[in-house]
Amino acid sequence: MRVAAVCGGVGGAKLADGLLHVLPAQTLGLIVNTGDDFEHLGLHISPDVDTVLYTLSGLANPATGWGRRDESWSFMAALQALGGETWFRLGDADLAMHVQRTRRLAAGEPLSAITADSARRLGIAAQLLPMTDGRLRTRVRTDAGWVDFQDYFVRQQCRPTLHEIRFDGAAMCEPAPGVAELLRGEALEAIVICPSNPYLSVDPVLAVPGLRQLLRAAGVPVVAVSPLIAGAAVKGPTAKIMAELGKASSALEVARHYRGLIDGFVLDERDAAQAAEIAADAGVAVRLCDTLMQCDDDRQRVARASLQLAAELRNDSAAALRARRSRPT
Amino acid sequence: MRVAAVCGGVGGAKLADGLLHVLPAQTLGLIVNTGDDFEHLGLHISPDVDTVLYTLSGLANPATGWGRRDESWSFMAALQALGGETWFRLGDADLAMHVQRTRRLAAGEPLSAITADSARRLGIAAQLLPMTDGRLRTRVRTDAGWVDFQDYFVRQQCRPTLHEIRFDGAAMCEPAPGVAELLRGEALEAIVICPSNPYLSVDPVLAVPGLRQLLRAAGVPVVAVSPLIAGAAVKGPTAKIMAELGKASSALEVARHYRGLIDGFVLDERDAAQAAEIAADAGVAVRLCDTLMQCDDDRQRVARASLQLAAELRNDSAAALRARRSRPT
Repeated sequence: MRVAAVCGGVGGAKLADGLLHVLPAQTLGLIVNTGDDFEHLGLHISPDVDTVLYTLSGLANPATGWGRRDESWSFMAALQALGGETWFRLGDADLAMHVQRTRRLAAGEPLSAITADSARRLGIAAQLLPMTDGRLRTRVRTDAGWVDFQDYFVRQQCRPTLHEIRFDGAAMCEPAPGVAELLRGEALEAIVICPSNPYLSVDPVLAVPGLRQLLRAAGVPVVAVSPLIAGAAVKGPTAKIMAELGKASSALEVARHYRGLIDGFVLDERDAAQAAEIAADAGVAVRLCDTLMQCDDDRQRVARASLQLAAELRNDSAAALRARRSRPT
Repeated sequence: MRVAAVCGGVGGAKLADGLLHVLPAQTLGLIVNTGDDFEHLGLHISPDVDTVLYTLSGLANPATGWGRRDESWSFMAALQALGGETWFRLGDADLAMHVQRTRRLAAGEPLSAITADSARRLGIAAQLLPMTDGRLRTRVRTDAGWVDFQDYFVRQQCRPTLHEIRFDGAAMCEPAPGVAELLRGEALEAIVICPSNPYLSVDPVLAVPGLRQLLRAAGVPVVAVSPLIAGAAVKGPTAKIMAELGKASSALEVARHYRGLIDGFVLDERDAAQAAEIAADAGVAVRLCDTLMQCDDDRQRVARASLQLAAELRNDSAAALRARRSRPT
């Protein structure tokens, strides 16, 4: 039995951790956004991959949502004294990940192999797959024009109004080795789209040529978990950018965004009033759940709700699943 | 008034620090060995330049002779967990120097400009000059064949027998910007060869085409300070490799090594018995001094002895100096 999950950073990593703990070891395969990757101080940084690695290995900093717990900051202090760029905070232990990844990439190893090895060394009993070994870079258009994602997201703290998102280099990318095998595998039982930002964390994954088709063609239920609770994101700019993109910042809007891709939608119980409309409008089965993940139990509760919804949808035939997903969007 | 000094790591940096403190600000110009430079973990590391930067800014670790005081080691621990190479110890704060230098080199800045800027930012009132912006790499031949210097020096802790030393790439190098200006400058009053390893720290400097000639042509006294005390190095493999290269590990042998280049030699008082032979054999003026540098006062004492010897030698005419240095070696 295998379960595939698509995720970005913080929220997605939390559900991935819940799935890892409620599923038998080696069951979970994670397809992680790399659209946020960037080069900084000469280092290749993969923020979402790192957040997933740290979260699943118990090393994550629970306060920040990025970086490692019990981190020290000597590097940043010394870098500042040397006039270096300090807007992207790199902890001393965290640096090892970036230095080692950069060195291995420079030596010709693909990101997928480096990520798998890092996960193994950190004792993670899940398959970690970057969405692609290629170079897809999320860029956003603000009033100042197109800027790199991390410039907008970290340096400018998402303050500028976001008008448009694009995924540079997507056309030259293909799913990383292991992604198609996971999604086409006979043992696959469910696909979960984690409660990550649909536009900035999940869309880059879907922008990798072939990846959306692999998800749609999988003969198993695809279940998305709402990243919004009562119209607000737990963390991050999801609601803000939905408003700026002219969308309602609602779970219904997220479900519509995934229309044609998903079969089920896990909705926070605080948004129960939207359940019927989501079911009708996005054409999906809806499961209510307290989706706020503050502790390990929370993560596992949301993981179980997602897997149970998928299990119920498995009673539908594969043909019925595919037919639902081929509805015009 | 200017004073130029040639130095490598630990011992050289200590005397450089002494010179910095006994001379007026902006007087001292240091020409630093970069033959030990290497690429490690994708980073450009300049061990001697760093030791000088840290020593002159008061950041050096007095116990190790390399790296920074009050250093933390989170990076190394995390790197080890990821399977990275840990034989070359990189402290968390120290890393900032390597990351920043590597990034700036990659952006096209020469090592000399980066070094000058780093020295300025660390508040060092001396001119720090890498010997060259080119790529000269010290390599040593052991029973296992030719190996990189840091492999021999750090990874193998100088254990193998050293048979031969060469300076790869020397022919393609030239003195860094500022070196010729310093050595040809009207204001120059003395040149000090610091008590660094003559074969591994000073010879690479002299191997940069034009540099030995610049030293010999300078119309000011050149004074070397013995790196040996009673036939032993204070730190490092100087005595060991002298023996392995078939030389006597004595101050006399060091003075002979510099014959034709120096006018004066500062000899440790424990080696007073060699003074007459050094004066006769190497043809230089000898000054006795306690050269062991354990505290700031020690450093300043050796600095003063070197400068006083040079001042006395300045009474010789420039022509007399040049004539002495043109003696066949």
